[in-house]
Amino acid sequence: MASSPIAGVRPGIHRPASSLGCERVVEKRYLMTPGPTPVPPEVLAVLAEPVVHHRARDFKGTYERCLARLQEVYRTDNDVLLFTASGTGAFEGAVANLTSPGDRIVVVSSGNFGERWAAVTAAYGADVVHVRLPWGATPDPDDLRGALASAGDVRVVYLVHSETSTGVVSDVQSLAAVAKDSGALVVVDAVSSLGAVPLETDAWGIDVVVSGSQKALMCPPGLAFNSVSAEALDQAARATSPRYVFDWERTRKAQAKLDAPFTPAVSLVKALDVALGMLLEEGLEAAFERHARLGRACREGIKAMGLELFSPDDDRSAVVTAVRAPSGIDAGDVVASLRDRFGITIAGGQGELKGKIFRIGHIGWFDVFDITTALAAVELVLADAGADIERGIAVTRALEAYETHAAV
Amino acid sequence: MASSPIAGVRPGIHRPASSLGCERVVEKRYLMTPGPTPVPPEVLAVLAEPVVHHRARDFKGTYERCLARLQEVYRTDNDVLLFTASGTGAFEGAVANLTSPGDRIVVVSSGNFGERWAAVTAAYGADVVHVRLPWGATPDPDDLRGALASAGDVRVVYLVHSETSTGVVSDVQSLAAVAKDSGALVVVDAVSSLGAVPLETDAWGIDVVVSGSQKALMCPPGLAFNSVSAEALDQAARATSPRYVFDWERTRKAQAKLDAPFTPAVSLVKALDVALGMLLEEGLEAAFERHARLGRACREGIKAMGLELFSPDDDRSAVVTAVRAPSGIDAGDVVASLRDRFGITIAGGQGELKGKIFRIGHIGWFDVFDITTALAAVELVLADAGADIERGIAVTRALEAYETHAAV
Repeated sequence: MASSPIAGVRPGIHRPASSLGCERVVEKRYLMTPGPTPVPPEVLAVLAEPVVHHRARDFKGTYERCLARLQEVYRTDNDVLLFTASGTGAFEGAVANLTSPGDRIVVVSSGNFGERWAAVTAAYGADVVHVRLPWGATPDPDDLRGALASAGDVRVVYLVHSETSTGVVSDVQSLAAVAKDSGALVVVDAVSSLGAVPLETDAWGIDVVVSGSQKALMCPPGLAFNSVSAEALDQAARATSPRYVFDWERTRKAQAKLDAPFTPAVSLVKALDVALGMLLEEGLEAAFERHARLGRACREGIKAMGLELFSPDDDRSAVVTAVRAPSGIDAGDVVASLRDRFGITIAGGQGELKGKIFRIGHIGWFDVFDITTALAAVELVLADAGADIERGIAVTRALEAYETHAAV
Repeated sequence: MASSPIAGVRPGIHRPASSLGCERVVEKRYLMTPGPTPVPPEVLAVLAEPVVHHRARDFKGTYERCLARLQEVYRTDNDVLLFTASGTGAFEGAVANLTSPGDRIVVVSSGNFGERWAAVTAAYGADVVHVRLPWGATPDPDDLRGALASAGDVRVVYLVHSETSTGVVSDVQSLAAVAKDSGALVVVDAVSSLGAVPLETDAWGIDVVVSGSQKALMCPPGLAFNSVSAEALDQAARATSPRYVFDWERTRKAQAKLDAPFTPAVSLVKALDVALGMLLEEGLEAAFERHARLGRACREGIKAMGLELFSPDDDRSAVVTAVRAPSGIDAGDVVASLRDRFGITIAGGQGELKGKIFRIGHIGWFDVFDITTALAAVELVLADAGADIERGIAVTRALEAYETHAAV
């Protein structure tokens, strides 16, 4: 194992946190996972304001603006229903309101969150046709077309836009078109993609887009959303699965009066309103462009140091960059070492990819120097662990790549 | 209508907010509803800290301590399962995990939240035996005993500890004992009572206590809880109702590893940890005593000005004081006037009590001067509206009553 080039920092991939305390009295923290993501100080400041009542006039204006901004970010005229929940709560809402036990539905999966669609729909007793692709695959519209043709009468197709576990952003426009052709409703998990990569809810005919506050929307976790088309609401009126807090009709009726059926997380709603305002001030197209360039910068830096990408090397991969650990090194050790030595949180592999890949998130409040920080730290940790790593190139290459404007 | 005794404030029960802007450039806000409640500055400050990852070591210590503190506040050795949800989400969890369609259950209601138990259990297809008492009644254990005897095989009894809509705090110890005698599981809504009035989860044999962050626990809304006894978990293993984010087994298994099955509202968990620390530092018995004295102070002040209480005039009524509007005055106008003239948010009547009562909450971060503020404002608004109100006594009487220690 090479000795560390940083004075005072001992080499070694494992290092207990307690020893760090002596060496680095002030340790900054860097949150670089694909969710939760860093929250801008303007948004954090709002969280520290006194709590208001959800039916007070002080709140109603915020609530109205926040719901309108959500529609703008979603690019939809449909209602965007807001729930106090983890993102998976909005998955559950999109299942409980659309399926009755025995309904045939199709799930397309190629990673952890696609498989979550299969798990939630199964929990509600749906007849699940699971198009289960290998983790890391990019779903092909033809796979879906074939599955729909052989499955027969399919009520709902559940898709993933950004598969956070692998870094793959699917061509959800084409997938949705295939599903719509079959007459099925289309539901898309856009938890980590909304606000980061182009998503046209109405133009692409997506009946339900599921998202959450804690990814590209630059807010803490705790709020989740379902946009609902007229057709989706029609089907919900017939669906017999039990539901209460995620019930669309109850929520829609309340929101129409600028009310909520249950006390929402008012502090988070205020924060989301500010964060969405920031995103819309940047402009959605500019945000998409920034994310595409962040992804490119990250990939070019990773390749420059001689590492192998797991996520596809294309401009759509703008959410999270997944990287194969060099041979002989456990990706979990890379994650632990970044955490213990530098206070940097990146993500490891999930499920079958555990130990094999690590993931650098770059959605939301990120700029190119967050990428160079992550790359510099990864480079050092891997070199210290004895990996065959090209030193001193990644940061420069990432900065160069960031300067090249992307064709979004 | 009498002319206002406060210079510069024009009389009249209705007043648009815009006119206030000119007269009171700095308008403080007073949140005096029974939820959401005011949050201490120490807790608000934590909300403004940078977001941490829910699986980062920085968070695990907080999470572990927060879960342990919840058990201490609950006075239970059972797991307290934590959900990112409105309080009603925890109602739904206590139904979805315990009932299968057709199961006979008993709901005892005497207000809005008791009726919510009936609505949620009905949504899950339970065979609901609804002991529906008049709004404002204090449930009698004999009513429950009779219902259980005639209903036969009852799986679960759903009770309300503090009925926030009426101000009634029930003798849930006696009610639970009757339910346990029948062999049923006992579920208690303690959303607004936990931390304010005595509740002994284990000593009283309560299988599931439902609560939330935004009441006496001095946090913003967004977190909700289910404590779960071994018997409740056994029944959950057999219950066939679909559930995913509120599933107890999934949540329990994750919490056992200091994990959460889905990204929780990390900022709120950090805030809750601090708030619970403050509550436990005061001491639960001291907090109960303080709430009993706050309730007494509020009631004595209300009576001193000649108003009629709607909530019972006893020391258990320590959560919210419900007051009948004087004849000829709509309680909604009192609420609106406090809001528009003084920036004070109290609550009106819900459901059938709309317009008839107003409610002053005093759970959580309250002291006696919050009570005197509410009383002084109510007195002024009612006097200006022409009500026959005794002036200038309520505040003094409230302060006297607060000095008398309560027998909790």
